Amino acid sequence: MSNSLLISGASQIVTVRGRGPRRGAALSKIAVLHDGAILVRNGLISAVGPSAKVEKLADSKKAEKVEVGGRVVLPGFVDAHTHLIHAASRAEEYELRIRGASYEEIARQGGGILNSVKKLRAATAEELKGRARGFLEQFAEHGTTTIEAKSGYGLDVTSELRVLSLHKELDAEQPLEIVSTFLGAHVVPLEYRGTSEGKRQYLELLEKRMIPEIAQNGLAEFCDVFCERSAFSLSESRSVLKAGKARGLSPRIHAEQLSNTGATLMGIELGAASCDHLEYLKPADVRALAKSKTVATLLPGCDFHLGLRRYAPARELIDAGAIVGLATDFNPGTSPTLSMPMILSLACTQLRMTPAEAIAAATINAAYSLGREKRIGSIETGKQADMAVFEVADYREIPYYFGVNHCWMTMKRGEMVYLRD
Amino acid sequence: MSNSLLISGASQIVTVRGRGPRRGAALSKIAVLHDGAILVRNGLISAVGPSAKVEKLADSKKAEKVEVGGRVVLPGFVDAHTHLIHAASRAEEYELRIRGASYEEIARQGGGILNSVKKLRAATAEELKGRARGFLEQFAEHGTTTIEAKSGYGLDVTSELRVLSLHKELDAEQPLEIVSTFLGAHVVPLEYRGTSEGKRQYLELLEKRMIPEIAQNGLAEFCDVFCERSAFSLSESRSVLKAGKARGLSPRIHAEQLSNTGATLMGIELGAASCDHLEYLKPADVRALAKSKTVATLLPGCDFHLGLRRYAPARELIDAGAIVGLATDFNPGTSPTLSMPMILSLACTQLRMTPAEAIAAATINAAYSLGREKRIGSIETGKQADMAVFEVADYREIPYYFGVNHCWMTMKRGEMVYLRD
Repeated sequence: MSNSLLISGASQIVTVRGRGPRRGAALSKIAVLHDGAILVRNGLISAVGPSAKVEKLADSKKAEKVEVGGRVVLPGFVDAHTHLIHAASRAEEYELRIRGASYEEIARQGGGILNSVKKLRAATAEELKGRARGFLEQFAEHGTTTIEAKSGYGLDVTSELRVLSLHKELDAEQPLEIVSTFLGAHVVPLEYRGTSEGKRQYLELLEKRMIPEIAQNGLAEFCDVFCERSAFSLSESRSVLKAGKARGLSPRIHAEQLSNTGATLMGIELGAASCDHLEYLKPADVRALAKSKTVATLLPGCDFHLGLRRYAPARELIDAGAIVGLATDFNPGTSPTLSMPMILSLACTQLRMTPAEAIAAATINAAYSLGREKRIGSIETGKQADMAVFEVADYREIPYYFGVNHCWMTMKRGEMVYLRD
Repeated sequence: MSNSLLISGASQIVTVRGRGPRRGAALSKIAVLHDGAILVRNGLISAVGPSAKVEKLADSKKAEKVEVGGRVVLPGFVDAHTHLIHAASRAEEYELRIRGASYEEIARQGGGILNSVKKLRAATAEELKGRARGFLEQFAEHGTTTIEAKSGYGLDVTSELRVLSLHKELDAEQPLEIVSTFLGAHVVPLEYRGTSEGKRQYLELLEKRMIPEIAQNGLAEFCDVFCERSAFSLSESRSVLKAGKARGLSPRIHAEQLSNTGATLMGIELGAASCDHLEYLKPADVRALAKSKTVATLLPGCDFHLGLRRYAPARELIDAGAIVGLATDFNPGTSPTLSMPMILSLACTQLRMTPAEAIAAATINAAYSLGREKRIGSIETGKQADMAVFEVADYREIPYYFGVNHCWMTMKRGEMVYLRD
């Protein structure tokens, strides 16, 4: 890493400015700096502003120059909902669904999440890690610099701890930042199925053994639950999140994806960092989110991939004043994409968010949901130099040219982690 | 170009086999060859089959080896509907639409196609060509080896002829094959608007002057019309297509995109090579397509980008026995994507086509719609060596991993035109 770095020649530097997350009309208020430059020192942004001014400063620091020639610079994307570590694709289920089977039917036949659980338990740590490394490179190629990663395909003590440990190892050995979430309450594993007593025993294992061990070893920052008729009830979900919170794991929750369960109101009540999915929100949920500090993280890739025509009510959420975030939900069953530009396209064309709103949702608001908004999520003096440069003339072309990745360069803590040749 | 080339190590070689286009149940009957190899000689496929057999043959020909290490080989995509040459993106209209303006409202305010006409007329040939060259490289990066390209942003004699000439020049100077279509009847240009007499005069210019000049100079193979309430009526469209046909230009037609106009039945009656769009098909249209040799070319990118939830009835068409094709409709207003993998994802998730059906629709059936099915569109002995290699373990993962381009290598006439580093 060079000590001082000057990023110059950008046609646009696009970022939010100022403190905290963005709500309502403020979500679309991004700053577009034309003919600007950025000075990076020791991995941090030490100046951003008009080229002439920043270049003069750079000269005095003898900065190395990175010419981005007419391209657009954004804060690196923060992907706040991924299931990074899994053992295999589920393309065969994809085909079954196209032929008419529903997601829940496939799950009942041992497909779905349990399919991933079986394969993950059978895989070696090296296999899982190698696969995840490949995905992390692809995340970087698409402009993402920080990802949240959930466990939840292990569902026994050994496998869950192993996945969370792999998050930690991967975070240390490659440039992208990985924020770890424990999702032992993804579904009930096969060996505990069939009786309500079995489910109770699994939840006891989860709360009494997994959570304490994870907390003690610092293996996760967050605890998540899939609250849905096919997974965990509202009261079970509450119990898990409270157990996590008692050990210092902040709550996140999979809420109202396939039906309205009341998970959103419960999440807010517990001070969840984020409620995710939200396709089946009720007006009262929207109002409650608007009054809360909980981020409404929308995952349109999931609806798209499942061929569902019902998306989360993004406009209602924004207009009511909720903190809207966007994430890929990268996972092998319901959203096998790690492209945040693709998610921006979905947000714009399907959720009717403007390009500016989508960018703020995928950067500063996502960073806020991970408790990192003071350090990442915008291009401002003092922040970490996490940026993505796109081969377009205007930031609106990033979602506009859908399905095509225009990311040209990605930088994490001032280090170039991807450069298109 | 090496005289002999051996492509080996593929985990799957995926292609249709046999003559002619694919209808009904035959659309999903693709051959998946595991552990196969392909021998290319002088730009043609001279053998395809089990590795051991083809490799022995290759040894005797002293073939140069191209190792594709566990990847999937497909025929190069044939994109049978693009508006390749245009002067600028229309990302600003994209934002207006997201904010609530309809496509037709924007068109009435001088946006839409007329916006592109204004900019194209003002651009130099070198500007247009440079931009198109960049797009052609991107097509190759996404596995496409042949594209159809339409005029229709010129709408005066000089500009239309200029664009068609540029198609010819670009076809000659770079490896991808460009099939030229005259679309003078895209909309009525501004200078002829306002009166029905003006429209009549434009159509006269088009039929009496443009078509004869284009035919005489061999500048197009096809003649296309946008038959829609905001463009040309059924009888006007019929007249244009007949004028083109009389001069040797085969008909194609933009049909039933925003409403049902009867364009499909008329196109079939005139022996059109393809009816494109088809969102508003009636059951009688579906039956007629099923009995005809006209390809039903579906353009789901357009519906996606416009945020319309109505897609063409792909399953009905396939089940009835129509020849279904897929294309990007690459254009700056309604479908700014040139990624055929993205179109496959849309076909699978939104049109409920299986991955196998989508691949056949985007290769052999598209080739058939361009009159080239004997030469391209499949990996069979004697055909042109047009292929795309994907960084996946199974062909179904190409549409599955949506929004991410897994194309690793593209070959046109046995020449490597793209290789990911």
